[in-house]
Amino acid sequence: MSTLSSTVQITATSPAPAETALDAVPELVAAAVAAGQRWAATSRADRAGVLDAVADALDAAGDDLVPLAMAESHLPEGRLRGELQRTTFQLRLFGEVLREGAYLDVRVDHADPAWPMGAPRPDLRRTQVPLGPVVVFAAVNFPFAFSVAGGDTASALAAGCPVLLKAHPGHLRLSVATADVVRGALTAAGAPDDLFTLLVGDEAGRAALTDPGVQAGAFTGSTVGGRTLFDLATSRPVPIPFFGELGSVNPVFVTRAAAEARGPEIASQAVASFTLGVGQFCTKPGVLLVPEGSSVLEALRTAELPGAAPMLSDRMVSGHNRVRHELEELPHVSVLARSADGEDATPGPTVLLTDVASLLADVEELFRECFGPTLLVATYAGEADLLALAQAIDGQLTASVFGEESDVPALGELVTVLGTKAGRLLWNGWPTGVSVTYAQQHGGPYPATTAPSTTSVGTAAIDRFLRPVAFQGFPQALLPAELRDAAALPTRVDGTLQRPGATA
Amino acid sequence: MSTLSSTVQITATSPAPAETALDAVPELVAAAVAAGQRWAATSRADRAGVLDAVADALDAAGDDLVPLAMAESHLPEGRLRGELQRTTFQLRLFGEVLREGAYLDVRVDHADPAWPMGAPRPDLRRTQVPLGPVVVFAAVNFPFAFSVAGGDTASALAAGCPVLLKAHPGHLRLSVATADVVRGALTAAGAPDDLFTLLVGDEAGRAALTDPGVQAGAFTGSTVGGRTLFDLATSRPVPIPFFGELGSVNPVFVTRAAAEARGPEIASQAVASFTLGVGQFCTKPGVLLVPEGSSVLEALRTAELPGAAPMLSDRMVSGHNRVRHELEELPHVSVLARSADGEDATPGPTVLLTDVASLLADVEELFRECFGPTLLVATYAGEADLLALAQAIDGQLTASVFGEESDVPALGELVTVLGTKAGRLLWNGWPTGVSVTYAQQHGGPYPATTAPSTTSVGTAAIDRFLRPVAFQGFPQALLPAELRDAAALPTRVDGTLQRPGATA
Repeated sequence: MSTLSSTVQITATSPAPAETALDAVPELVAAAVAAGQRWAATSRADRAGVLDAVADALDAAGDDLVPLAMAESHLPEGRLRGELQRTTFQLRLFGEVLREGAYLDVRVDHADPAWPMGAPRPDLRRTQVPLGPVVVFAAVNFPFAFSVAGGDTASALAAGCPVLLKAHPGHLRLSVATADVVRGALTAAGAPDDLFTLLVGDEAGRAALTDPGVQAGAFTGSTVGGRTLFDLATSRPVPIPFFGELGSVNPVFVTRAAAEARGPEIASQAVASFTLGVGQFCTKPGVLLVPEGSSVLEALRTAELPGAAPMLSDRMVSGHNRVRHELEELPHVSVLARSADGEDATPGPTVLLTDVASLLADVEELFRECFGPTLLVATYAGEADLLALAQAIDGQLTASVFGEESDVPALGELVTVLGTKAGRLLWNGWPTGVSVTYAQQHGGPYPATTAPSTTSVGTAAIDRFLRPVAFQGFPQALLPAELRDAAALPTRVDGTLQRPGATA
Repeated sequence: MSTLSSTVQITATSPAPAETALDAVPELVAAAVAAGQRWAATSRADRAGVLDAVADALDAAGDDLVPLAMAESHLPEGRLRGELQRTTFQLRLFGEVLREGAYLDVRVDHADPAWPMGAPRPDLRRTQVPLGPVVVFAAVNFPFAFSVAGGDTASALAAGCPVLLKAHPGHLRLSVATADVVRGALTAAGAPDDLFTLLVGDEAGRAALTDPGVQAGAFTGSTVGGRTLFDLATSRPVPIPFFGELGSVNPVFVTRAAAEARGPEIASQAVASFTLGVGQFCTKPGVLLVPEGSSVLEALRTAELPGAAPMLSDRMVSGHNRVRHELEELPHVSVLARSADGEDATPGPTVLLTDVASLLADVEELFRECFGPTLLVATYAGEADLLALAQAIDGQLTASVFGEESDVPALGELVTVLGTKAGRLLWNGWPTGVSVTYAQQHGGPYPATTAPSTTSVGTAAIDRFLRPVAFQGFPQALLPAELRDAAALPTRVDGTLQRPGATA
């Protein structure tokens, strides 16, 4: 792959791409269906190689793509280069997942005439097949990692599904350029034509989501936008799964002991976390619970907050400022600290203050996502307040607890309750920064997601785009390779999990 | 458990139970929520013991329950005793699943400062937690195995979820009696009160499904009924997963070689399968494809069909007869063989005849479920017809291929296409009889189910009621037992699957 060179033609001053014509959508979906049939039949090793090739091409195009991303997203170069690294790492990680094959959850039950169910057990072998074409709705806040070649695309392609990628209007030129790199790499690597298709425009996205050829949707964005698409997907004549990652407040619970031991440190970390990326993360900590009179409060009040910085779009600015204004206007909410707003109403980081009793009295109004650099601090009197709040909130992507060793024996119930509310719990950690790993869980009950049993980050994200199929009594030659007797995959054989090499 | 004796008080002549009062539903759900908190905190071993106790109690009550089931379902004793055996086997099998623990899909990523994503990897450990209260809508056609103590109940309880069971009106007395046995066994085994609640009446079922405390729904029944409930579940302010198993035609494809080699045998097996249980199975073969002029046709025409037998209810009779009538009235459909209808319009087994071209010309009208003892035979000219039909049909629970060794090389594409349409493929096997095993897949694309990535039969059915949670940087004492360093479960450690005992 050392001969790779970028073929990116588009620049920040190129005209914005035209919207995809609505009447072109059925043909694009039909082409994706056809590509999907070939792709599903491509071996796992070959699919892994294709993902690697896409990653290599994106890495090679970094010097062209990153400036485009900077111009359209207003995010700094370092962040975007890091995000591109995360994106290509993710593609290669799914390649590893394919080569290993355990994600297929292969199960082989040999025929058993004495099966105690009361009837003989046939030979049954179960694997997973791809769902088919997926419409992915790109997010605005990660122009690489949750956009054209991001986690949804990587995991859908890995699963064996074609992708129709609805570009986010916040970075259309980057989307076209990235899609060109992806399509070029796919073609060069021998993948089927039309395995990956870029769609521009909300109407085209909705048309694709409701096209009978499409089998699933994936989305990262706002609760309102995600719910609208979820409703479309589930109200089709043939409803399809819709994996939406929507909104989250990501509460952080600080124990009295932790506040006493590390108040100023927690305060400065909180500032770093809620202002990171101008607060434009779905995992931004939105509510921080600290004991009344804690040094965290004084440290926040006197913290040196960063200045106002550009947000991703004017829409982000107005959306953030509206919610911040509504929060500020509520009784029992005051401003603890703030930086001055910048030009064009660009918000300065703001720390608001309330108390848990007020929060509990009006959870819907006060405990809500304010996407951008605003943090609501709520003081509490006793540990029971923490438990009461944990019980009162709705689904979250994350919940964090800051505690000391001495707190551990008393925190079991709080952690258990938070486990019923969030997809990821953190101990003495901030929720921003979502590592792409095997054990990651980026999901949670609604409204964190529309599919609480799934994750959009980490290797388990591939599971969303697969469906089990059992083969009963089949001859070896007609079985998928992974179900044949000679397959060397982790397999559940007659109920017992076997490691590679240990199977017959 | 040798002291178990039945406490069943209800008989076939007892008055029908009253409908659950609508205004009682919120309290019942609240009690289930509270029970669920205790149940989720119950160890896997203890939960397994409770499932065993329920199975033992049901076995002990068989002599009381089976006569009730016979009176209400009109099914014969042998079938019902076998079904009860299947039901209690299933409860105990989920106990085994709990004791082993691999269903938790435990993943442990140790902290890694050099993680190639570009940022250090934290310590992340992922397990599964129960979703919370599940409303299960019982099916009519399996008064034990898909009803009060059936697969949905067993897998939800195993997952750690409380169950609100909406009784099927087709066997209300049996439902009350079974629920009494279940609740008595749960209490005796020390399970939380209100872990299992019986609901009577459609309105109570709908009220429970839309109660904010309920986290999932499960259903086995008709496409119309299931879709209505799916729409309710997904249109809630907080939508919840709805696992509906709806309708399926279960096509059977017979190759020319198989028809030539075993025509009469295939015909007699087809008759046995489509008339089994008076055709009242979701896996009843509804369409049989045979080559033109095949001996299968003559064998079917002259087959000794069983006589008319009672169906589960008058509603079943009228539903079957309406669809059968509509099929018969279509052009290009004739009657190949039939038994006379019985009293009260009880249908005699009927074999209808058409050809694949007609089927393809009107798939929606002709390729449809006729729940009861009717089979539509379609003749084909060439193998291409089989592929064309496979491509034209919608989602199925099963698809079967009857072929000879000599067919194998040519059948790859047909099997691949059928794999995109059905949850279970059978080779030289009839779809009726769904074995409860580790590798079973009883599901499929819509309208076979509303959740194509799930199964309602087999050990994987437990996955429906679980949700992953990742713990980041937690001290050992606050981790769920299965995530601690000393846990001896099958675990993915730093990306590599480890068997029990091999972990640190």
